[in-house]
Amino acid sequence: MSVTAAKGFTASGIAAGIKANGNPDLALVVNNGPRLAAAGVFTSNRVKAAPVLWSEQVLKGGQVSAVVLNSGGANACTGPKGFQDTHATAEKTAAVLDVNAGEVAVASTGLIGVLLPMDKVLAGVETAAAQLGPHGGEKAAIAIKTTDTVHKTSVRTGDGWTVGGMAKGAGMLAPGLATMLVVLTTDADVDTASLDKALRAATRTTFDRVDSDGCMSTNDTVLLLASGASEITPDPAEFTEAVRAVCDDLGQQLIRDAEGASKDIKVEVVGAATEEDAVEVGRSIARNNLLKCAIHGEDPNWGRVLSAIGTTRAAFEPDQLNVAINGVWVCKNGGVGEDRELVDMRYREVHIVADLAAGAATATIWTNDLTADYVHENSAYSS
Amino acid sequence: MSVTAAKGFTASGIAAGIKANGNPDLALVVNNGPRLAAAGVFTSNRVKAAPVLWSEQVLKGGQVSAVVLNSGGANACTGPKGFQDTHATAEKTAAVLDVNAGEVAVASTGLIGVLLPMDKVLAGVETAAAQLGPHGGEKAAIAIKTTDTVHKTSVRTGDGWTVGGMAKGAGMLAPGLATMLVVLTTDADVDTASLDKALRAATRTTFDRVDSDGCMSTNDTVLLLASGASEITPDPAEFTEAVRAVCDDLGQQLIRDAEGASKDIKVEVVGAATEEDAVEVGRSIARNNLLKCAIHGEDPNWGRVLSAIGTTRAAFEPDQLNVAINGVWVCKNGGVGEDRELVDMRYREVHIVADLAAGAATATIWTNDLTADYVHENSAYSS
Repeated sequence: MSVTAAKGFTASGIAAGIKANGNPDLALVVNNGPRLAAAGVFTSNRVKAAPVLWSEQVLKGGQVSAVVLNSGGANACTGPKGFQDTHATAEKTAAVLDVNAGEVAVASTGLIGVLLPMDKVLAGVETAAAQLGPHGGEKAAIAIKTTDTVHKTSVRTGDGWTVGGMAKGAGMLAPGLATMLVVLTTDADVDTASLDKALRAATRTTFDRVDSDGCMSTNDTVLLLASGASEITPDPAEFTEAVRAVCDDLGQQLIRDAEGASKDIKVEVVGAATEEDAVEVGRSIARNNLLKCAIHGEDPNWGRVLSAIGTTRAAFEPDQLNVAINGVWVCKNGGVGEDRELVDMRYREVHIVADLAAGAATATIWTNDLTADYVHENSAYSS
Repeated sequence: MSVTAAKGFTASGIAAGIKANGNPDLALVVNNGPRLAAAGVFTSNRVKAAPVLWSEQVLKGGQVSAVVLNSGGANACTGPKGFQDTHATAEKTAAVLDVNAGEVAVASTGLIGVLLPMDKVLAGVETAAAQLGPHGGEKAAIAIKTTDTVHKTSVRTGDGWTVGGMAKGAGMLAPGLATMLVVLTTDADVDTASLDKALRAATRTTFDRVDSDGCMSTNDTVLLLASGASEITPDPAEFTEAVRAVCDDLGQQLIRDAEGASKDIKVEVVGAATEEDAVEVGRSIARNNLLKCAIHGEDPNWGRVLSAIGTTRAAFEPDQLNVAINGVWVCKNGGVGEDRELVDMRYREVHIVADLAAGAATATIWTNDLTADYVHENSAYSS
């Protein structure tokens, strides 16, 4: 159902020939209104791809008529020519759809440092526009895949209104403010300011806490478009929760499909003095290569958890730290706790709880193990 | 030659039975004076092993008579009992050597969260003391190995004086203020304050810029002991340079022996506004798993270098960044530069230059590639 689950949206996904292997590589999502409200969050990487620079400007206007997305090339580190290409893509889309180019967002993903084949992109926009339809969401989700093994979509419904979305991302997966390419749509009748508030609240505790490999992308983009076609204005809290649930579901799908991973690791930090401390500690644990290897080897190596906590500025006393792995408190008061032989690590999901014993704040970061397959996938060819 | 290259020192290395495989695991280094001056730097990890907590106190006195080191167990996260064990080891060493226990430094390395077999450690101290000799430096260097495939020693000589040392370390290799276990000795006649100054100056640009896997240890310890036996007080700059050269040499040996690595990567940041910026950027590049995989695959993937630079707070403009890999400027002005096919990556050493075009400061960080062997070595068993 994806981005066309909500009323007022059409979408399509086609093979424009950007990818050498002929797989689908260009998607179009169109908001047919009556509203054109939109909000977006983008990578906090200071090296931003051309489409991010463009779309940030578009979103400042608070209105988006269409989003054109391509896989097969990130259009990042491509200089003024790269930005001209993004601009030309938006202009072409605007012309074909008879909308304002300043209301066309662009998103790209793929190899950094390579210019897009613009003849194929521009022809692809025409083809994609011709195939737009109210059931095109699935094809759009497929066309934005890169190393993703599956496409990712999610839908939540309220009382007469819907939030749906699609996401891509499998590597370079450690957002700063946003992550990956994500397009969310809703037919709720919500203005730009409310959309923005709901989106930021949702991404802060979902995509922003996915940290698969510690590598922040140049192209991360999350857009939320509202058509107002349901003619219903939901309760703000209910709406925010629906957006959060869709983001959370898509974030989980990204983790489950992360490059080469064999374990999905939920790092839950509790007992922190502040939420900021909890996030810092969670991220430090999630990025510790030695721990990620240990989890891959099904070794409940809590010493590596403590060594990761010790590198942070969070409030804690080393002799009060507690760590549970899959429900077994293997570390108590900074030392040996329950028998590590009790830890069952056979399953894909691994749950680490780090108790800082310094307060009541919590945060959860999602990551993956580090595997020989990850190394292979990221060393055998450019991506 | 190691720690016994300088006059006034004896050392030994024995198998005390701490390691299950029977390999050497206990080393003793003794300063026979006339001076007992010493300086030390320790991990900045806030979760510190018992021997680090003990030795930090010892070093505050500025005098060290002996250093006892064990592999086969880190004595980290072992609570009050762990600290008592370190204390007992120092007391035993002091009794056997007839010195003050407050002048015996202790260092340990191995698995975190396991108590040492104290009967073996204390008996080992007696054996090691009986085997002390002026040529024992090599055996001491061998006894502190864990996953190291080779032992590491280095010597520099001045005009009538010598600086020598040994180091261990192959994983959890990303120092905060110091790294790994390192003991340096000199027969130069230098007081504690001068030693301290020379050691901090030397480690700041050597061990502190080794960042093999981004994981900071709980046990990092670097000690510098001076016997004064040469009766020569060197020029301070000359002495500091000798200490720096020994640290640099040992740091390079650590990188060359890093767990599972197939490439040694020199990340040189130039054109930075400040040295602090250069170090931050160098470390961000050195810790980027995707780049480390690409280097393993001999792929000059400069886009991953730029995405790593973009996560820092350093002063730079994205469209002015330049990157060279093995002498080929593959990225110029933030975009495509010279042909990447010109980059020869067949050899073990890889040289990345990142030019921020924002000033004149520089820094060099040493790291390794990320390999399936690293994953295997750190997932197949606890270490």
